[in-house]
Amino acid sequence: MRKIKNILLLAGGDSTRFWPLENKLFLSFLGKPLILYQIEELLKYGELVTVVANKSNATTVKRLVENNNIESVQIIIQKDDYSGMAGAVFSIKNHIKGEVLIINGSDLIDHSIILKLMPLIDQENKLIMVGKQFNEYFSGGYFKFDDEKKIIGIIEKPDKDKRPSSTVKLVFDYFADIKDLLKYFSQAKTQKDDLYEAIINKMLLDDLKHTHLIYDSYWYGLKYPWQVLPMMRNFLILLKGQKISTSAEISEKALIIGPVVIGENVKVGAFCKIVGPTFIGDNTIVGDYSMIRESQIGEDSLVGSFSEVARSYVGNNVFLHRNYIGDSVLDNDVMFGAQAVTGNLKFDGEKILSEVNEKRIDTNMNKLGAIVGKLSKIGVNATIFPGVKVGKKSWVGPGEKVKYDVEDKTYLADGEEKGNIKV
Amino acid sequence: MRKIKNILLLAGGDSTRFWPLENKLFLSFLGKPLILYQIEELLKYGELVTVVANKSNATTVKRLVENNNIESVQIIIQKDDYSGMAGAVFSIKNHIKGEVLIINGSDLIDHSIILKLMPLIDQENKLIMVGKQFNEYFSGGYFKFDDEKKIIGIIEKPDKDKRPSSTVKLVFDYFADIKDLLKYFSQAKTQKDDLYEAIINKMLLDDLKHTHLIYDSYWYGLKYPWQVLPMMRNFLILLKGQKISTSAEISEKALIIGPVVIGENVKVGAFCKIVGPTFIGDNTIVGDYSMIRESQIGEDSLVGSFSEVARSYVGNNVFLHRNYIGDSVLDNDVMFGAQAVTGNLKFDGEKILSEVNEKRIDTNMNKLGAIVGKLSKIGVNATIFPGVKVGKKSWVGPGEKVKYDVEDKTYLADGEEKGNIKV
Amino acid sequence: MRKIKNILLLAGGDSTRFWPLENKLFLSFLGKPLILYQIEELLKYGELVTVVANKSNATTVKRLVENNNIESVQIIIQKDDYSGMAGAVFSIKNHIKGEVLIINGSDLIDHSIILKLMPLIDQENKLIMVGKQFNEYFSGGYFKFDDEKKIIGIIEKPDKDKRPSSTVKLVFDYFADIKDLLKYFSQAKTQKDDLYEAIINKMLLDDLKHTHLIYDSYWYGLKYPWQVLPMMRNFLILLKGQKISTSAEISEKALIIGPVVIGENVKVGAFCKIVGPTFIGDNTIVGDYSMIRESQIGEDSLVGSFSEVARSYVGNNVFLHRNYIGDSVLDNDVMFGAQAVTGNLKFDGEKILSEVNEKRIDTNMNKLGAIVGKLSKIGVNATIFPGVKVGKKSWVGPGEKVKYDVEDKTYLADGEEKGNIKV
Repeated sequence: MRKIKNILLLAGGDSTRFWPLENKLFLSFLGKPLILYQIEELLKYGELVTVVANKSNATTVKRLVENNNIESVQIIIQKDDYSGMAGAVFSIKNHIKGEVLIINGSDLIDHSIILKLMPLIDQENKLIMVGKQFNEYFSGGYFKFDDEKKIIGIIEKPDKDKRPSSTVKLVFDYFADIKDLLKYFSQAKTQKDDLYEAIINKMLLDDLKHTHLIYDSYWYGLKYPWQVLPMMRNFLILLKGQKISTSAEISEKALIIGPVVIGENVKVGAFCKIVGPTFIGDNTIVGDYSMIRESQIGEDSLVGSFSEVARSYVGNNVFLHRNYIGDSVLDNDVMFGAQAVTGNLKFDGEKILSEVNEKRIDTNMNKLGAIVGKLSKIGVNATIFPGVKVGKKSWVGPGEKVKYDVEDKTYLADGEEKGNIKV
Repeated sequence: MRKIKNILLLAGGDSTRFWPLENKLFLSFLGKPLILYQIEELLKYGELVTVVANKSNATTVKRLVENNNIESVQIIIQKDDYSGMAGAVFSIKNHIKGEVLIINGSDLIDHSIILKLMPLIDQENKLIMVGKQFNEYFSGGYFKFDDEKKIIGIIEKPDKDKRPSSTVKLVFDYFADIKDLLKYFSQAKTQKDDLYEAIINKMLLDDLKHTHLIYDSYWYGLKYPWQVLPMMRNFLILLKGQKISTSAEISEKALIIGPVVIGENVKVGAFCKIVGPTFIGDNTIVGDYSMIRESQIGEDSLVGSFSEVARSYVGNNVFLHRNYIGDSVLDNDVMFGAQAVTGNLKFDGEKILSEVNEKRIDTNMNKLGAIVGKLSKIGVNATIFPGVKVGKKSWVGPGEKVKYDVEDKTYLADGEEKGNIKV
Repeated sequence: MRKIKNILLLAGGDSTRFWPLENKLFLSFLGKPLILYQIEELLKYGELVTVVANKSNATTVKRLVENNNIESVQIIIQKDDYSGMAGAVFSIKNHIKGEVLIINGSDLIDHSIILKLMPLIDQENKLIMVGKQFNEYFSGGYFKFDDEKKIIGIIEKPDKDKRPSSTVKLVFDYFADIKDLLKYFSQAKTQKDDLYEAIINKMLLDDLKHTHLIYDSYWYGLKYPWQVLPMMRNFLILLKGQKISTSAEISEKALIIGPVVIGENVKVGAFCKIVGPTFIGDNTIVGDYSMIRESQIGEDSLVGSFSEVARSYVGNNVFLHRNYIGDSVLDNDVMFGAQAVTGNLKFDGEKILSEVNEKRIDTNMNKLGAIVGKLSKIGVNATIFPGVKVGKKSWVGPGEKVKYDVEDKTYLADGEEKGNIKV
């Protein structure tokens, strides 16, 4: 199989809308950071994967690649000549040559779509774009087609009723020669975030030889923190059979059902029930009478007795005890006191809203619990309302009702923010 | 065995004091509506059962009778010439002839008492009444006896210390000819609710040949909603042995102890304990680690994991999760969020009071939990105080403490009623 | 083995700092009152044990001694000529003669240290004191040594940085003749609480022939109520193997692990897990799905279903239900409603403070739950903060958050003390 010469993996974007989670590319699914999945998968289809990282994450990317003995990867730090995707592309101008496939690091798709690019490449297209049809409104760039179903433009974030088609452009762009792309930078008038998109539109206007593919399999982004859940589910459903480490100690009185992975030195207590697809990381303890289903639990965690974790993402070194964690995301080092509970359903059964940058966003999920940032602690008997986010290093007092998002490093008591936590 | 020619089953009364429950006659016990029990039982002793229904329930009664292929039943809609029992009796004047036994549809007694009427009927009594001795005060009509223990009057709701005897008249009146009763209507001066009782007293005054029986077995009324519990218990204690549907799936790790009925397609999860007498209706799921004792669960319900239901009436399509439901009545389509709990004991150990029509009524029960109307939803971690009633279609917010009754269609949050729910 | 002629067991002190617990000497550990352990143990080393009780507890001491057929014990009621230890010593002046070892009834140590006294007694010391080294600051009397490691004074409660040594004097004083001690009373100028300590210092000044021992094994006092927990632990760790009464009924589906004592007529339900060292007193019921570890449960208690008791002292006739009781002390006749929970950890992981006589005291424990006095009742879903004490005969309303100590006979509701409970 012929490989594409260059694959450019964008890893330099910011994560403000991902709060209270951070570093989406390093988020571990089933024990492996997302970016490693991406790199390993892309190396099946590309000769060289170039990761454009930013100053704060480049070292970690490098370390991950080295620790896993991955070759054929180069890491470039994004420069700030241009912002957004254009900045990323411009940063690699001296580092790669020839054909390039540009992919977003936090978008998870079935990369075997690349095989379908090959015949289109052979037709000597200069630009190949990939779109996906969305029935519901999606905030992205939409293909505008002419009568012969040829793309004549990309309309960025149109109003819901002004969409030129139902096909959204993915960040999955093939250029036969990166020079075609780079030469537009000198001509460009805009310095804005959408320079890259403007360049594509200019190429279309100039009638560069191009075509497109429709992708019809799964697509998972990580713009918002609740999107961790469907992405996790996508990893979980790939589990087949049971894989229980020989160093794990499983009580004879525990039940393990369906595809379940249990890591090294895990302990599963009496009267537990673990229902797959579920992943439990190394050194984690599942206390007596605990039930876990369709979830991932990280390493070194304690799912304390009488807990119930359903359809949730639980990070490393998390401490639970008699909790119901439903459809929730708990980042590393989170602690829940006894009988604290996450609500995950609205009374009216409607989609759950969550506030991002002072706007109420429709999460498009009917079931969504809490999203809790790193190192935060939730007191005994606390109640977190559906879709509420608790910031990093925050404390929620015992018995509190948490209706609204809690900032980072904040102590919530008696229904009020009681000032900052010095950590 | 000779049968009584006519049995008149009163089914037209209102249910205001039964709030938040409704339609007491259609309330299902162990999968069968109360009125069907009554009709089936009475057809053992009567040639024709005439049900006096009201406009709003006649169709349902008819449907129930037809669907169950019950013959020898006629259904008459109560007219409003007279109110109360008199209205019911007057409504059937053109529909039945000859002897008649008048019985209240929502009073559950051992109908084999009818056999004891027979010798008294043979003595050509025109009127036979039945009384029951109550040690504690009961708000009803009391027999007043002469020295020869013959009834000389009925005293309606006397003061506690002015009771003429300890024998309360049941709604269980035999008339050798309904004409004797009907002819009094034309003479009657009163149009009030107690016309029927006035007529009986007039008959006694006129020295119509009459006698009475003392009934000394069980009697369960349904004036107040908490009375559902002792009536349920009476049905449950009749269960003998285990009757588990072959289509039910019972975990090998579940325990089922004592007289338990489990319906079609029921699923009982791992580590469950079901202790009889208990009834579980068709298609209900009992989640893992759930315990049910001395209760009835309706159809299509989910007793979610880690729940505990004790001595409670749970209707159809009810959703529980990690709750303690003790000595409570949950009507159909009720939902309890995780770890919501019903208190069922007062600190002082005294009888639990409950408000009805703005009066605090002594329920005469030391243990009583919540009574929740149809389609209501209780938030996660909410606390319902003993004896509190939650109206129909209401919502109790997560973490709320519910000390007082909640009206229908009301959203309780932050300890206040937050306005109506539009449904 | 030679025995000491007189052992004086001080049992007359007050217990104000021990609130909401009371009568520390009668507190039962593993089914036996502390004072009985003391007396039985001391009779191994002494010919006569003289208990100096006070007016309110002398009868109980007497009854305990008689009921257990213990000989060689005399009980003296403390007179109020002098307060504190001096008062106790003065009260026995006409009752014992010759050598005496003075020991505090509520201090638990390894009494085999007495064997080490013997050679020192043989050296004709008039006074032998015993000290113990504490690394952390301990509020007591410190030995002041001269250069030859001879004690030259006792410094009572020095400032933390002015301790003359790290050796604290225990209440464990041997006098070759009680007359040596008594004769100082007439010379004494002080009438204060510290007269006894003043006398010792005077003896040292007078250069009475004396020496001391360093004790390096366990020492448990009961000044504060939370000290019940380490003392309990000391009794528990002495349990070896399982001792399950033949009259106990243990479900086949229960797990009992490690050194566990189960008393007469105890019932252990299905899916229970009891982990030793644990003691369960006679007639107690452990409900289904309950977990007990490293705890003592008294007699006639009900550890209701789904409860979890960890590292806690639970008295007699206590009623639990779906609670988490962690690192807590529940005196006799306490009731917890369903899902009430004790917090036992501070968010900052620091030592837990508790208020005693309006001062915040460092309990020196990182894990400490609630301390609940006799006959108190905690409502369903209530939350007790770490280190909080609830007085005797008090009620905590359903769903309350209890951040501060609750007085005796107090009803806490809506976050406020709602007045006294008349009992």
